[in-house]
Amino acid sequence: MSNGLLIVLSAPSGCGKTTIVRQVMRELPGLEFSVSHTTRQPRPGEVDGVQYHFVTEPEFITLRDQTPCGFLEWAEVHGNWYGTSVAEVETRCRAGKDVLLDIDVQGAAQVRLRANPVTVFIVPPSLAVLEQRLRGRGTENEGTLAKRLNNARMEIAAIDAYQYLIINDRLDEAVESLRSIIIAERSRQRRDRGGVPMRWQS
Amino acid sequence: MSNGLLIVLSAPSGCGKTTIVRQVMRELPGLEFSVSHTTRQPRPGEVDGVQYHFVTEPEFITLRDQTPCGFLEWAEVHGNWYGTSVAEVETRCRAGKDVLLDIDVQGAAQVRLRANPVTVFIVPPSLAVLEQRLRGRGTENEGTLAKRLNNARMEIAAIDAYQYLIINDRLDEAVESLRSIIIAERSRQRRDRGGVPMRWQS
Repeated sequence: MSNGLLIVLSAPSGCGKTTIVRQVMRELPGLEFSVSHTTRQPRPGEVDGVQYHFVTEPEFITLRDQTPCGFLEWAEVHGNWYGTSVAEVETRCRAGKDVLLDIDVQGAAQVRLRANPVTVFIVPPSLAVLEQRLRGRGTENEGTLAKRLNNARMEIAAIDAYQYLIINDRLDEAVESLRSIIIAERSRQRRDRGGVPMRWQS
Repeated sequence: MSNGLLIVLSAPSGCGKTTIVRQVMRELPGLEFSVSHTTRQPRPGEVDGVQYHFVTEPEFITLRDQTPCGFLEWAEVHGNWYGTSVAEVETRCRAGKDVLLDIDVQGAAQVRLRANPVTVFIVPPSLAVLEQRLRGRGTENEGTLAKRLNNARMEIAAIDAYQYLIINDRLDEAVESLRSIIIAERSRQRRDRGGVPMRWQS
């Protein structure tokens, strides 16, 4: 059995990423999301090992400070720690699964230091369309909206570092693009991914 | 409008390449075969500019000996000359068409010297299956069969130089793979193809 792919997916919020990924996972077997570690408290209904691996801060720090680092990428958000564990991803890839990481541009930059992922960025057709979509949700106040648009602007500035760019203009075409990227990468000869899907630093 | 892709497709005869490509072209608009130049005589029903550009030997040699060479790749087969003209491919790519070149491993090696193509190799599941398929056609005598199998062995030795490998085990999966490779490459950021689809040598 050959190793699975590691696929990094980034997109500003409001780009339709969740809808696209859900549809692609329905159509394409062998694709899995990685389950992140977090130090935040489980919300009602969340199950350890399903939504997240819930760990204590000392547990998180132990993994983070291993040599090499036990996380492919990690970050602190609002006082909680989040990270993608190397072991988690490695186990799934070695079992032949293609692993999806839904992370931002800073997380993606960390992953690229350690592994050789397939990187995909999803953008809206324009910032005007993104603003329209975020307003359409009706869940954002003006302050959050402005912050999201600013974040989007910053994230989009980093798209050059990604291998693939999907413009989510029509949903069916965006789904077809992501699906095709994964199928194509499965046919790509391994030497293009550095001999193995991931070149772990020792 | 962005430039089209240049896609090099190689496969030993009997791999089902023609069937796969015909199906993909039916499903995917914007895909065209390049029309080769040849010095051989047109057969009944063949039209200049459709099956081939039919040229005289002096015309062929003039193109071939230009600096830079007027052909992306060229070869002599049974006393006739065949070649893919740079102008032909460039015009189609600049018009936004994705251009398919159906050429052997030696032609592919020539193209890679001049351009930055997407390269795809189609193989049968095994040499035994290939032999079975060639025998199934019932059009080959033992001599031709042995020659085709030997050619296949030599061609397959060159697959490392290709970016994508499609194993034609099930036809529908092979069609899906080639289709996905083309769609994925359309989403691939240009920098991965050397800034432009083809980097012509000056």
